Amino acid sequence: MATQPRVIEVKQNVLAANDRAADELRADLKRRGSFLLNLMSSPGSGKTTTLGRTIDALKDTLDIAVMEADIDSDVDARAMLEHGICAVQLHTGGMCHLDAQMTRQGLEALRETIREESTMRGADFRAVDGDASDDVELIFLENVGNLVCPAEFDTGACANVASVSVPGGDDKPLKYPLMFQVADVILVNKIDVLPYFDFSLETFEEYVRMRNPNAPVIPICAKTGEGMDAWYDWLVEHVKEWRS
Amino acid sequence: MATQPRVIEVKQNVLAANDRAADELRADLKRRGSFLLNLMSSPGSGKTTTLGRTIDALKDTLDIAVMEADIDSDVDARAMLEHGICAVQLHTGGMCHLDAQMTRQGLEALRETIREESTMRGADFRAVDGDASDDVELIFLENVGNLVCPAEFDTGACANVASVSVPGGDDKPLKYPLMFQVADVILVNKIDVLPYFDFSLETFEEYVRMRNPNAPVIPICAKTGEGMDAWYDWLVEHVKEWRS
Repeated sequence: MATQPRVIEVKQNVLAANDRAADELRADLKRRGSFLLNLMSSPGSGKTTTLGRTIDALKDTLDIAVMEADIDSDVDARAMLEHGICAVQLHTGGMCHLDAQMTRQGLEALRETIREESTMRGADFRAVDGDASDDVELIFLENVGNLVCPAEFDTGACANVASVSVPGGDDKPLKYPLMFQVADVILVNKIDVLPYFDFSLETFEEYVRMRNPNAPVIPICAKTGEGMDAWYDWLVEHVKEWRS
Repeated sequence: MATQPRVIEVKQNVLAANDRAADELRADLKRRGSFLLNLMSSPGSGKTTTLGRTIDALKDTLDIAVMEADIDSDVDARAMLEHGICAVQLHTGGMCHLDAQMTRQGLEALRETIREESTMRGADFRAVDGDASDDVELIFLENVGNLVCPAEFDTGACANVASVSVPGGDDKPLKYPLMFQVADVILVNKIDVLPYFDFSLETFEEYVRMRNPNAPVIPICAKTGEGMDAWYDWLVEHVKEWRS
C-alpha cells in the first residue's frame, strides 16, 4: 500500500468550463459596449455605501445599472433603487459566489427589467435590445460578501474591484492572496478611522504588490467622499476605454 | 422607476446541471455495486477520527476506499493510508464544496490508484475495472469541512452523513437547515463531553425533525467507541441494500 496519497486537483475542469463561459460573456459585453464591474469584498467593508455615492456622482455622466448578489435578502437592491437607477437582486440561495452562468442570467433579467421600465415610462430610458451601442454603459455587479470563493470564479466581468476597509486590518492580502491577484483596482474604505486602527496603508500596499504589481490602490471614505474622485476617474476612464 | 427590486434566483440552472450529473454518477455507482457515502461536517467535529475507527472495524467485512477532499493539504489522506486502505486526496484549490463532476474525477483517480496498487501487489486487490461486481463496496467521500455549500451540491453519493459534535452546540440544525435536510443519517460525536457542555440530545433531535422526519440521529464517541455499533449497523445494512 502506498504511503503517499495521490492528490487530484478536482476543481480545474469546473473552472475551465467557467472560464470559457466568462470569456463568451465578456465578448458579448464588448459587442454591446457595456462595462460590467465585479465588486468583491468581505461583509461590512462598506461596498453598498461606496456604490450609492458612486452612482450619485456619475449617473448624469453614464448610464448605470446594478446587480446585487446576495444569499437571501434584497436590502441592497432596494437601497440602489433609491438612487434612481435600475437594480435587480440575484439570489444565490446559499451559494457563496457567482459564476459566469449566474452572471449571464442576472444580465438577462436586468435587461428585461430595463426594457419593461422603459416601456412604462414611454421609452425615455435608452433601449437595451437590438443596437448594441444603446446598452447600459456601466453595470455594477455586487458579488456575495466573501473574500475566498468569488475570487475563484471569473464572472465574465470586464474588471474586478477588491474592496476592503481599515477596521478589517492591513493583512488581508496575506490571508486572501487570490482576491488581490485577480483585482484590477483595490479600494481601501473608511480611511476616516485610520487614526484609531493599527492599519498602515504602506504595509497594505506592500502586501498587495506581492500578488499584484499593477492594480492601483485607492484609499477612500465613502461616507465623507474623501478620495472618491480618484475612483471616479478610474471608472470613467475604464468605461470609455472599454467602449472605444 | 420601480420601488421593489426584481429578484432572480440565479443558482437554479447551475444546480439543475449538477443534479443531472449527480444522478448519472449514482446510476454508474449502482451498476458497479459501489456505495459512495458523502460525509459532511464543520471543521473539528472529528470526522477523520470517526472514519479511521470505522475503517478499522469494517475493513475485514467490506472492501473500503476513501476520498478526502480538502482545500489544500493532504493530511487526511495520509491518515487514512495508515489504516491500510486505498485513499486519494482531492484538492478543491480554494473551493468550499465538491460537486458531482469533481466527485467523478476523484472516483476515476481512485480506481486508477487501486488498479496500480493491485498490479504492484500481484493483483491480490480486487479488480476494479470491467466486471462491475468487483468494484470497491464502500467508498467514503470526506467533503470540505463546511456546513453551508456542500449541502447545496449533490455529489452523486448514494447517501449523505451530517456529522456534528457536542462542543459545536445543539442549535446547528437551526443555523444550517439544508445540511440536516439532505442528510440520510446524522452523527453526534464527542458524547463523552456531554456533561461539560450545554448540549441537549433531545433538543438537537427536535431541531433536526423540523427539517428531516426520518434520518436516524446516532450519538457516538469516535475516541472511545461508544455508540459506534449503531453506526456500523447502519453502514453495513445500507451497503448491502445498495448492492442487492
